[in-house]
Order: sequence, then structure tokens, then C-alpha cells
Amino acid sequence: LDLNITKPTLLIDEKKSRANIRRMAEKANANGVELRPHFKTHQSLEIGRWFSQAGISKATVSSLDMADFFSSEWNDITVAFPLNILQIETVNKLASKIQLNLITDDAGTVGFLSKNLANKIRLFIEVNVGQNRSGVEAGDYDAIDQILSVISATDMIEYAGFLGHAGQSYQCRTKEEIEKVSAESRRIMQRLKEKYRATYPDLIISLGDTPCCSVAENFEGQDEMRPGNFVFYDLTQVQIGSCSLDQIAVALACPIVSISYERFEITFHGGGVHLSKDRMEEDGQIIFGKIAKKTAEGWGDLIPNVYVKSLSQEHGIIVVPGDTIGDYRIGDLLYVLPVHSCMTANLMREYQTVDGSVLTN
Amino acid sequence: LDLNITKPTLLIDEKKSRANIRRMAEKANANGVELRPHFKTHQSLEIGRWFSQAGISKATVSSLDMADFFSSEWNDITVAFPLNILQIETVNKLASKIQLNLITDDAGTVGFLSKNLANKIRLFIEVNVGQNRSGVEAGDYDAIDQILSVISATDMIEYAGFLGHAGQSYQCRTKEEIEKVSAESRRIMQRLKEKYRATYPDLIISLGDTPCCSVAENFEGQDEMRPGNFVFYDLTQVQIGSCSLDQIAVALACPIVSISYERFEITFHGGGVHLSKDRMEEDGQIIFGKIAKKTAEGWGDLIPNVYVKSLSQEHGIIVVPGDTIGDYRIGDLLYVLPVHSCMTANLMREYQTVDGSVLTN
Repeated sequence: LDLNITKPTLLIDEKKSRANIRRMAEKANANGVELRPHFKTHQSLEIGRWFSQAGISKATVSSLDMADFFSSEWNDITVAFPLNILQIETVNKLASKIQLNLITDDAGTVGFLSKNLANKIRLFIEVNVGQNRSGVEAGDYDAIDQILSVISATDMIEYAGFLGHAGQSYQCRTKEEIEKVSAESRRIMQRLKEKYRATYPDLIISLGDTPCCSVAENFEGQDEMRPGNFVFYDLTQVQIGSCSLDQIAVALACPIVSISYERFEITFHGGGVHLSKDRMEEDGQIIFGKIAKKTAEGWGDLIPNVYVKSLSQEHGIIVVPGDTIGDYRIGDLLYVLPVHSCMTANLMREYQTVDGSVLTN
Repeated sequence: LDLNITKPTLLIDEKKSRANIRRMAEKANANGVELRPHFKTHQSLEIGRWFSQAGISKATVSSLDMADFFSSEWNDITVAFPLNILQIETVNKLASKIQLNLITDDAGTVGFLSKNLANKIRLFIEVNVGQNRSGVEAGDYDAIDQILSVISATDMIEYAGFLGHAGQSYQCRTKEEIEKVSAESRRIMQRLKEKYRATYPDLIISLGDTPCCSVAENFEGQDEMRPGNFVFYDLTQVQIGSCSLDQIAVALACPIVSISYERFEITFHGGGVHLSKDRMEEDGQIIFGKIAKKTAEGWGDLIPNVYVKSLSQEHGIIVVPGDTIGDYRIGDLLYVLPVHSCMTANLMREYQTVDGSVLTN
């Protein structure tokens, strides 16, 4: 692997990423669930095409601007973020050209939409399935009925179903814990589906976070899954148990710029503006990345007992075992596996494949 | 204040920012120290011009790419980051058009430069003044002599002096602690200056971090200061004691998208991709921002007992006192004061003044 890299560069292993996509598409298929992957992780039209090539035709995004970006190639997009009514112009622009699916937990927002929509949209009611971020409480039938009544008073909104995000799965560390989160969120949704399907026979249940979608083996009661991170995975997902280390499909190549033989620490070019300040805790230690060994095809195993101990804006620091400090030289590249690949990809904006091609957008 | 804001938007209060610049320029002047501000915080040519207008003609940046960006308007730039030898082409390109000042702590890097430079540069020896990031150890005269001997063997490198960053000041919480850091780092540098000025009478001592530059009253032994964050300040600097709350010159305007009357929590559009995941601890609580009141001219005091408790990629959540939850409505804007303005500005890339003009670059 020698790609003329001179500065922090986000490498992508296309084979690993395509295998991650294929595996999830096959799993969704085998379970009779539609995969509507979340594109906030990669934010790239080119990587989006890898999904098309795996038979995926619908996407999820996290903002109206991102929907706008992907609308050049995708014609059925769900914005899985509570509708921001201030962007009604973007909603109308998008709804005129693609199938736009929105979410909300607020009847006032639906009332606003019914007065201001110029084109038809589909709308999900967002349900809190345990993450306690946004969404109506699952037992709050008054709130749900109120939203449905506003929807039924307008022709511009088609009711799509219930959507949730079981983000509490990020606290899990075993398969059993993840399966419990998956089962509980599907049970919550199942109850709603049973209550409302007489009136809305086509309503669907949309759930999806990378840990549950990667680990759970039962998707009963779920019609759609929306994982995002799995396209790259990262150290956090390894810690949760969603993937193995060799499924991580991105690494930040970072030049070494300073070596401390006193502290057994190495400073590299690669900081919070490249990796983000996202962190994880492991054995009581806060870490910001780990280092993989360089191989002929890209990167391989972890270098044992080496981790990124701190990041400032452009500096990263790794600690290495004292007897290995002589293995490193200024100008060498470190292959940093990110703690959170979505945030790293958002900052880097551009990928270089291990074969040397550059993917922008 | 009504600026037709529809999505997360970084507001800048130009008056506050210009006052921050002016105050630091006057302080540097009064103390006979040259202000070479760090532009990594704002990364904007337009804001750079506010510095020119305050009489500043030299800049600091944190990467060669940033030096390249500012070289269109600035002709004396220090890259205060250990030289990344892989970017020698950028070094040569820049050195052909501006006065380029680099730093290193490594004799091998100087040897590489002496063989590969096409144009003259000035070089600082970076010294570890207590942050333990990069830099030679202050007492390691062998390492310093070795670097100086490689420099003296080439005509392409002019030795500039000693440069340090007392980043440990970010752990301080009182004026006394900050003054101690400032005094100690200046003492370290003073010793070096005394030892080497017979041979290098023009060597300068460059130090500079926003806490020390903002708080210290004595700059004896220091020739140059390089603070960056002070152009905007932020909640971290308020906590350290570098500034008052009303000196913070940027706020992220964020639309409210969901309100939980059960948990007294409010979800807004504004996440890690806008504010960064940088955090601070206050009274045992991790916080990611605080909310300022909207005023006719921009924003004012903090809303008491309200803080950003978590951020995901696009979602932010504030907790509010239960009896105030009725004060908030979906579609209202929250004015979030950032924990770390450098990281927020790096993500947002664009500023809107409270008068309504947009500053890109």
C-alpha cells in the first residue's frame, strides 16, 4: 500500500464496505424486511451507488439538506429527523420531485404542514422506543390520535406508519442485551400496529439502528430497517458487538510529525477536525482511536496496546509500549481506526480507496 | 433579531469579535509583545481582515493547507504545528511567495528540509513548556544543539527562535493558576534565550495560548504571542476564566423540532456535525452548550439552569426547568453558546452576522 499520501486522508476499503452492504441487504431480504439504509454515515453519491448495485432503491437521511443532496439520484427518501418547519420551502421543493417521507411527534407541526404543503408527502409518527430523544411516548394514544386526526383532515399528507430509533442499543455490550432492545422496541411498535391497522391497513413499522440490525436475528413485526453506520462500522460498533474489527471499512492515514522517547508518545497530524472529538471508554481509559497495521492491501490487525490518548484541533497523540518506540519514524503513516466513522466521514468529505482512486461526494 | 434563519446557522457578533481583537492587540502593544494571532479558530479571510484593520500583519495557522489558504492575503505566516515532511511540495510552493515560518523538534526533519527546500524558510525549535504534546524537552540541550548544528549547515533555513504552547493552561480555573503557567513557560524559555542568544542574537521567544494571553499581566521574556480562540471565546474559556460570558462572539442558532413535556427536554436541529462533540464538565455534569436569550441586537444573558445535555449527529437536547417548558415552541430558535468555538467554526465554515450579512471564507 503506497498511495502518495501526504496529509490526513480517509482511506476506504471498498471490498469491506461492499461486503457490509451486501450482508445487510441479504439479512433484510431473508427476514422479509425492507432495507432503507441511512446515508448520513457516508454522505456520498458514489458510495450510494454501491447500495443501488446491491438492489437498494430507498434511502434515509438526517436532514432536509441531505435529502436535497441525494435527490439527484434517489427518488424515495425518508428524513429520519423531526421535521424542522422553518425549512418548508425545501420540503416543497423536494416533494415536487421525489417521494419524500417525513417524521414528527407533534400535531402542531402536522397542522403547519397541512396549511403550507404545495406537494404531497408521506408522514411517519415518530415513537420513543426507549432512547428518550424525540418521539411520542408509546402509550400516549391521545397524542397519536391528535396527529392522525390532523393528517386525516388534509389530502396532502399520506400517513405512512410508526418510526422509531432504538439508540439505547449503543449502551449494550452483549448480543443478549442488543436482542432485548430489539425485541422491546418491536413489541412497542407491534402494539401500535395492532391498535391502528384496522384504520390504516398499509401502515408500516420502521426501526433501525446499526447494533440491532447487525446483531438481532428476529425482526418480527418490523417492516423496514434503517441502519447507517454498518457501511463502514467503527471501534464503537466493535465494542458494542455489532461487527468484528476486520469489518471496519475506513481508516484515517495520518503522518507522524513528532516522537517523544521520554514519554513513549507519538504526535501525528490528525485531530478533532479530522476524526471528531468522539470518544469511547475501554478499561477505564478514554480513547479516540486505535492503530491498525499497514498491509499490502490496506490495513490489518491492531498494533497491540497502542491507542489514541488525546486529540486537539490538528494534533493526535498515541501512546506506545516503550520497547516499540523505535518502530516509528517521522514521516511514517499511522492507520487510525475511528471511534465513530459517521463523524469522521462528515469531517473528511472525501475518500481514497486502497486502490488509489478518490471518491468525492 | 430576525434573520430568516431556517436551519443551524453560526451567528457572529462582529462588534464583540472586533472588540476581542482590539483588546488583545492593545494588550500586546502595551507589553511590547508582537501579536501573531492564530487563525485556526476562524479560518476566514474576511475575519482575517478585521485583524489587519487592527494593525496586525502576521498570522499563525495549524496546517500547511491553512497557510496556503491564507497566503492569498497574508505574507508572513507561522505554521505552529510540527512540520509534516510529506508536504514538502506545499512548503516549497508557499516559501516561494511568503515568509514561511515552520516548527520542529526533530533534527532529522531539519536534515530533510536542508536537502529538499527550494526556497528559504525560518524555523523555530518547538519546546515542550509543560503541555507534553510535541516539542523538545526544555533541558535537552543535546537535542537543541543537534538541530542548531543541522540548521547552521544550510543557507536555506534561518533560525527563528524557540516556540512553545502552554496548553496546560486549559486545566486552570483561577487567575493565579493561569499566571503560574504563564510565568513557568516564560521562565523555561528565558533560560533557553539566555543560553543561546550569544550565538543567535535575533532569536525570539514565541508563546501563546488564549488563557495565558487573556489573563496574564506580565509577558517578560516573551517576544511574540499566538492566541487564537480569543477572537470568539466560548464556554470553556469562561470556565477557565479567560473571558466573561458577554465576550463570546459566536452562537449557533438552532430550530426547535420536538418538545417532551414528560421529560422537560427539547430536541433541536444542531448536533455533533454543527457544534462538534467537544464537551465540558460543570458541577459533575457533562455539557455540550448553554442557551443564551435572544435580544434585539443578537443574544444576551444565559437562560438559567438550561444546558445541552447530549448531541448526536444532527440532534441536540436541552434540559429545562419543568415550570419553563411552556416558554418553548417548535420552530423557535435556540441560541447555543458553544463549548469550543474553534471546532464549531471549523464545522460550520460560514458565519452570519447579527446584522444579516453572510461571511464565507
